[in-house]
Amino acid sequence: MIEYYDISGCYILRPWAMEIWELLKEFFDSEIKKLKLKPYYFPLFVTENVLQKEKDHIEGFAPEVVTKSGKSDLEAPIAIRPTSETVMYPYFSKWIRSHRDLPLKCNQWCNVVRWEFSNPTPFIRSREFLWQEGHTVFATKEEADEEVLQILELYRRIYEEFLAVPVSKGRKSEMEKFAGGLYTTSVEAFIPNTGRGIQGATSHCLGQNFAKMFDITFENEKGERSMVWQNSWAYTTRSIGVMIMTHGDDKGLVLPPKVAPIQVIVIPVPFKDADTTAIKGACESAVYTLNQAGIRADLDARENYSPGWKYSQWEMKGVPLRIEIGPKDLANKQVRIVRRDNGTKVDIPSTDLVEQVRVLLDGIQVNLLETAKAKRDACIEIISTWDEFIAALNNKKLILAPWCDEEEVEKDVKARTKGELGAAKTLCTPFDQPDLPSGTVCFASGKPAQKWSFWGRSY
Amino acid sequence: MIEYYDISGCYILRPWAMEIWELLKEFFDSEIKKLKLKPYYFPLFVTENVLQKEKDHIEGFAPEVVTKSGKSDLEAPIAIRPTSETVMYPYFSKWIRSHRDLPLKCNQWCNVVRWEFSNPTPFIRSREFLWQEGHTVFATKEEADEEVLQILELYRRIYEEFLAVPVSKGRKSEMEKFAGGLYTTSVEAFIPNTGRGIQGATSHCLGQNFAKMFDITFENEKGERSMVWQNSWAYTTRSIGVMIMTHGDDKGLVLPPKVAPIQVIVIPVPFKDADTTAIKGACESAVYTLNQAGIRADLDARENYSPGWKYSQWEMKGVPLRIEIGPKDLANKQVRIVRRDNGTKVDIPSTDLVEQVRVLLDGIQVNLLETAKAKRDACIEIISTWDEFIAALNNKKLILAPWCDEEEVEKDVKARTKGELGAAKTLCTPFDQPDLPSGTVCFASGKPAQKWSFWGRSY
Repeated sequence: MIEYYDISGCYILRPWAMEIWELLKEFFDSEIKKLKLKPYYFPLFVTENVLQKEKDHIEGFAPEVVTKSGKSDLEAPIAIRPTSETVMYPYFSKWIRSHRDLPLKCNQWCNVVRWEFSNPTPFIRSREFLWQEGHTVFATKEEADEEVLQILELYRRIYEEFLAVPVSKGRKSEMEKFAGGLYTTSVEAFIPNTGRGIQGATSHCLGQNFAKMFDITFENEKGERSMVWQNSWAYTTRSIGVMIMTHGDDKGLVLPPKVAPIQVIVIPVPFKDADTTAIKGACESAVYTLNQAGIRADLDARENYSPGWKYSQWEMKGVPLRIEIGPKDLANKQVRIVRRDNGTKVDIPSTDLVEQVRVLLDGIQVNLLETAKAKRDACIEIISTWDEFIAALNNKKLILAPWCDEEEVEKDVKARTKGELGAAKTLCTPFDQPDLPSGTVCFASGKPAQKWSFWGRSY
Repeated sequence: MIEYYDISGCYILRPWAMEIWELLKEFFDSEIKKLKLKPYYFPLFVTENVLQKEKDHIEGFAPEVVTKSGKSDLEAPIAIRPTSETVMYPYFSKWIRSHRDLPLKCNQWCNVVRWEFSNPTPFIRSREFLWQEGHTVFATKEEADEEVLQILELYRRIYEEFLAVPVSKGRKSEMEKFAGGLYTTSVEAFIPNTGRGIQGATSHCLGQNFAKMFDITFENEKGERSMVWQNSWAYTTRSIGVMIMTHGDDKGLVLPPKVAPIQVIVIPVPFKDADTTAIKGACESAVYTLNQAGIRADLDARENYSPGWKYSQWEMKGVPLRIEIGPKDLANKQVRIVRRDNGTKVDIPSTDLVEQVRVLLDGIQVNLLETAKAKRDACIEIISTWDEFIAALNNKKLILAPWCDEEEVEKDVKARTKGELGAAKTLCTPFDQPDLPSGTVCFASGKPAQKWSFWGRSY
């Protein structure tokens, strides 16, 4: 899927990754267009003085600074966007005059750069990555609040419906929210093998903080000047990494059918003395029939590899279904279908090909999500005391804990759990809250608990 | 379509431009996928030492150099891609081992940066722009040659079929070819108003120059190591600028229907005392009917603007057809349709709406190309002497001249025509060559002419 590049933290995305990205993009882009989002492209560069305008925001990012053009110094240093709030909002201020200019809804698909120094990891933490960033402006907080959740639901669908990765919707703590924003919602995944949470995508309500900074106001129906309300939201190529970690097994990738660039690989199995031409013909016919039905099928007709070698290779690549056609299948007018997710094999009549493949693909999509959900759920541990918290953390659990919701307490938990594996922090406060009996106290401070929050180590 | 940005030479692409870009991309991407091109994404950054490898190539570009990360200097300076040959080809060298790895066909849609200092112009010459870049590798020159022309034909189709801009296919001179390549083909447009040629897109055969530099070899069927043959090709957001300059008139943009984000704008014309609800209903019904038929129609129901103001605004934006519905139209079960390209008005029965709109849109698409072609052709001047050349140049002509095809002569012509408006140069040697009677001499050197070439000032 990727190739390491000669600059640390930069990776080459190969077709197997890019085709997944394109499939996700197709879904998401058509959904946001229904919400009247418009495509924009803003420049890669931002002048340093604009960047400095929003101190809080900037502390969250350390942008790269471009200083030379060829051999000569630039008039003024410029920075590469780590995100585009400071690129876009001076223009929002210019474009928005009246309530008739609202809502303003911009989205762009682009690359951004964050020169992370800690543990670059393909997809998960890279210095350059691809994303979409939506930036919207409303007259009222109600509209902004509503959109935050509409977008969050689309992010949930990307993870659960497409990538078959279970996620929790929730709200970030004050410490973990987007720098400079009002509040941040996110979808959070969890990787059982490593016992770490991972932020899947974020949908921020920026409130009026950026509006103040960049002077974005409008004249309302009564002729009064008001400050706008803003959101920004993004998901990145990281989503592919979360999917890989969730479903991968000893044999390699396992791709959910909805995002698999190839859903069915057809492999001829020409035993000695068999009619190889007829077998190849049957394989080509199967691919053709499936393609005509809108199923992404391909043929591996390479003659310099054995069927067994091909099986392993396509398993490694995670293709959901393998069809084998040998002399016996040909004679019986059937094909053998092997599932990648659980290895089960079934012989089906060639006449039922499309129908059966559809059923199997749907089944794999459902099974991957259910399996991942069962594994994730088995990791959730509800705790109530500090000792239980530490034990659960050491057991790589996704910890649901009653919390007083105080920033100082979160800082304290971070400090007390510092270590080689990284500190524990809040992942989110899930919208789906268990009952919180009155008198419940915070696991860390002993103060009255305000809410249940997910805690753990994270990527 | 654009907004000026606070960094000179950078522009914000607004939806009216991005939607055209998306329509072009949809066509081109599906066509190259039929040619088995695969999507990739290579990093934005390239290390300086790799850049230095290909001196000839690099002299053609002056990449931006990133030197700081936040406040601290980077370990080694890195540059931002002006194009991706030097980013990709070290990996092609790694990936290609055997003839079975060929052809390798990569395409990416991305941003690139060229810190031009001369006359930044929106779309036409900007410091950052969007493009696709295809990079392909073949075992034989024949395959590479064939693809160069397949891609060039797709570029011709983008210009002529989509943007309604007439172009000439041809080959660039040695001076004007891609730095480091073997030969460059291009589609060349011409802007009558300014009398300047403009390169529309380029399809390069790189030969084996980069293969030598980056050591890209393969083992052929006989077990011998051979050097690969490479192509690269690109078109950019400049194409939108060429379209704007070709069709624009005193009232603003004129968009060809195939790329118009809105093909039909429907405007209610509610005279005093008219049944505004019924008129608005008829407008909504027209938009719905057209949308259902796959036509991009929209309604301008804003109540704070007069119909006349709306007419002007949508004319300025270049929407191909305007539909007006007033009380008389309602009574007669008709709509009035006005063409943007020639202003003609026609009343058609509502029942024929979809059919008539289709005919009109097709007619506009054809008419725009034919009109532009007639204007362009009227600018072509065939000359044979230096005096005729200078006269034609002063008359802003697209000059077709017999040429000896010597680099020194092209340099000399450049030097002799230097001036405020810029020097004359070759645009291309068109594939469509008029007869060249033996004994014809070069207009500039008096030596035997080898070919007819287009000359002129250019963007």
